[in-house]
Amino acid sequence: MKKLFAEFFGTFWLVFGGCGSALFAAGIPDLGIGYAGVALAFGLTVLTMAYAVGHISGGHFNPAVTLGLWAGGRFDPKKIIPYIIAQCIGAIAAAGILYLILSGKDDFAIDATQAGAFASNGYGDFSPHGYPLMSAFVAEFILTFFFLLVIIGATDKLANTKFAGIAIGLALTLIHLISIPITNTSVNPARSLSQAVFVGGEPLSQVWLFWIAPVFGALIAGIVYKNLLQNNT
Amino acid sequence: MKKLFAEFFGTFWLVFGGCGSALFAAGIPDLGIGYAGVALAFGLTVLTMAYAVGHISGGHFNPAVTLGLWAGGRFDPKKIIPYIIAQCIGAIAAAGILYLILSGKDDFAIDATQAGAFASNGYGDFSPHGYPLMSAFVAEFILTFFFLLVIIGATDKLANTKFAGIAIGLALTLIHLISIPITNTSVNPARSLSQAVFVGGEPLSQVWLFWIAPVFGALIAGIVYKNLLQNNT
Amino acid sequence: MKKLFAEFFGTFWLVFGGCGSALFAAGIPDLGIGYAGVALAFGLTVLTMAYAVGHISGGHFNPAVTLGLWAGGRFDPKKIIPYIIAQCIGAIAAAGILYLILSGKDDFAIDATQAGAFASNGYGDFSPHGYPLMSAFVAEFILTFFFLLVIIGATDKLANTKFAGIAIGLALTLIHLISIPITNTSVNPARSLSQAVFVGGEPLSQVWLFWIAPVFGALIAGIVYKNLLQNNT
Amino acid sequence: MKKLFAEFFGTFWLVFGGCGSALFAAGIPDLGIGYAGVALAFGLTVLTMAYAVGHISGGHFNPAVTLGLWAGGRFDPKKIIPYIIAQCIGAIAAAGILYLILSGKDDFAIDATQAGAFASNGYGDFSPHGYPLMSAFVAEFILTFFFLLVIIGATDKLANTKFAGIAIGLALTLIHLISIPITNTSVNPARSLSQAVFVGGEPLSQVWLFWIAPVFGALIAGIVYKNLLQNNT
Repeated sequence: MKKLFAEFFGTFWLVFGGCGSALFAAGIPDLGIGYAGVALAFGLTVLTMAYAVGHISGGHFNPAVTLGLWAGGRFDPKKIIPYIIAQCIGAIAAAGILYLILSGKDDFAIDATQAGAFASNGYGDFSPHGYPLMSAFVAEFILTFFFLLVIIGATDKLANTKFAGIAIGLALTLIHLISIPITNTSVNPARSLSQAVFVGGEPLSQVWLFWIAPVFGALIAGIVYKNLLQNNT
Repeated sequence: MKKLFAEFFGTFWLVFGGCGSALFAAGIPDLGIGYAGVALAFGLTVLTMAYAVGHISGGHFNPAVTLGLWAGGRFDPKKIIPYIIAQCIGAIAAAGILYLILSGKDDFAIDATQAGAFASNGYGDFSPHGYPLMSAFVAEFILTFFFLLVIIGATDKLANTKFAGIAIGLALTLIHLISIPITNTSVNPARSLSQAVFVGGEPLSQVWLFWIAPVFGALIAGIVYKNLLQNNT
Repeated sequence: MKKLFAEFFGTFWLVFGGCGSALFAAGIPDLGIGYAGVALAFGLTVLTMAYAVGHISGGHFNPAVTLGLWAGGRFDPKKIIPYIIAQCIGAIAAAGILYLILSGKDDFAIDATQAGAFASNGYGDFSPHGYPLMSAFVAEFILTFFFLLVIIGATDKLANTKFAGIAIGLALTLIHLISIPITNTSVNPARSLSQAVFVGGEPLSQVWLFWIAPVFGALIAGIVYKNLLQNNT
Repeated sequence: MKKLFAEFFGTFWLVFGGCGSALFAAGIPDLGIGYAGVALAFGLTVLTMAYAVGHISGGHFNPAVTLGLWAGGRFDPKKIIPYIIAQCIGAIAAAGILYLILSGKDDFAIDATQAGAFASNGYGDFSPHGYPLMSAFVAEFILTFFFLLVIIGATDKLANTKFAGIAIGLALTLIHLISIPITNTSVNPARSLSQAVFVGGEPLSQVWLFWIAPVFGALIAGIVYKNLLQNNT
């Protein structure tokens, strides 16, 4: 149960900090933090929580991570469903608090016809810079594949594992530096779901891609690491 | 006494570096560091002092942190008042030196009717981007709650505690990446007090919120960590 | 063979993340990550992969690094050729996936007459800001020299080697902060080759400099460290 | 002798990377790295060299650091002069290479009447944003004082010393985030000297302040740490 609370708080922080920085601070003229600031924020949510509660739950905060670690032989399959439920509840709760804070402004409204509304993910007309479904799928697949390679590699018992929280958090920063313009960056089905449920419309109907592509990339990474990279002797 | 000097210098550095970077360097056209640079500066004041004097005083530099650690069962209640006094004196001394440096410029003046004057915190008309009291309260509460969760978690004896200074400092960077537009970011009553006393007027009369909300968030975090997350066996 | 897979994936990630962030996210008006974001991305590709697969292959991801480590007496000469081949294949594969993602946009085309096309390196008319061959050569030589000094020094058995991944990754960030305007920054022959083969034309015919200067700088660094800095007793 | 080579290379890298990033990349429209990028570059020169050659020479790269460590009882006074000479030679050599690279551009010229020419430090009319002598002196004094507090504290045998390279490097980043607009940031007499000798004129005649104020701040920090903060039992 402590593990599930840790996943709840960690995923809450990921969505609150990552999507929150995008919503509150990215686009302010001259002083705003831009895509680079949002990339840093997403990475730091994971870096900080990895050191804060990683010793409790392992610090996944992401259904694709949970599934990828299972595919890599690092996670007990019986805990997959509870972890994913805790992650999704944490993500949705965070999106709700973001909504509450933003709704205090008179001019606040979510326009479900606009790409990236309420920090949602999307492709085609809902990609921030017009990348089609195929580009979005390839990007999310490749990026989650490498995210899991970093996670599984950096926590390998032969690696310098105390630094894993830094490597994994900054991997998420790197992933956002690359791909916010493509899909607004998911690599995390819970983060995509939480924003989409508040937006509805087309962004919600596109959320399938942000479950399928990251999970697929994560599973392949688990298999690749175990078979091609891991020293099993 | 060494502990109080450490808290004095650490909180001085937090205000001098964080508020100083905002006042000197944030808004310069084209080259300025913007909100992201200020966020980095605040975090680095804590990261650097955590490694410099953390072994002396524990490295709080913030009354809310001191109180949250007490609520989490990590701090001796007899030291709370001296710590908070040392922090407030350090913060106010730093604000005085910032004032001294800025006053060397002919065009320097503090306009207490302007949001964020002299890096002060505020809500409503004194929020940098017009967030009302309720949004400001929720944001400061949630952010300080998670700041303490990171502090208490990363210094848990079961955690990878040598990295706590990195996790805690960068948590403060993350918090600023999210919330400068909302309240100019406090999560630290001493930092709010020091700027408000130099501004006076409405910003000073709003300073109550930046004591109540962070302290409340910190206390709840201490209780939550101890009861829901900590392994007490 | 595991070592070669590690070098393949690491160099793929370096090109995909570094050149990808430049192509997708650097130049977007107002929100784009700029040269500083690209610098951070390049560094983080190495930092993350150093902790993920450094324990497998040593984490070179760069022919100049492989050769410099050999010159410094740290790498078996029989493995030089296979490492360089794995690195070049990884780099070219990443460039291919970048091409695939970008080609989904209607307006995508590589203009081989433009400096920095498809994140290629160049000098003279193909330098991003008009630096001539001599300046480009000196910059690439000096920067790779110091890159190897950091790599060889930080992995010296007398050094604090667990932090080498952080120092080396952030050295690459620093190198890009300095020199993107000069040559679009190589210090890595595989990264230069992969982009040039997709661009062709003049950028491809300039690729010799981005093999010669970095390799020369790396070899000198290996010799200098071994003879002037290393404690051989 | 190895120690002096280490100080030579380290100070070369500090000037080449810090001043170089300012000269090549800071002011480019839209994509430039700005003051925040320069701040990061300066810090990373020290972070990277601290891990690369810190085990050889201690990693000072700055006459004020050498003197402050002596005042704090951490450095043998017989080595002060050779260290400072090696640092100044390294700094001047780096400035020479920067000059060489820049002079390849047709439009290159150093205008000694302009504030910040060739990344020089200055006050009054030569302060980047018009801060007078008194403000410049106070800022350089306070910032070097805290720089040394971080250096001496983070390397205290009771501290978590393996992280000192990170704390010290990022302290220099923080210092630049605060003070580039005030003096173009020195806190390092060697770095000020090297740029001033290439500029000449008024910036050279102002270089005294960037020796006096940093050295004074560093000496006071050494005395303060030893007497008020250090656990001498």
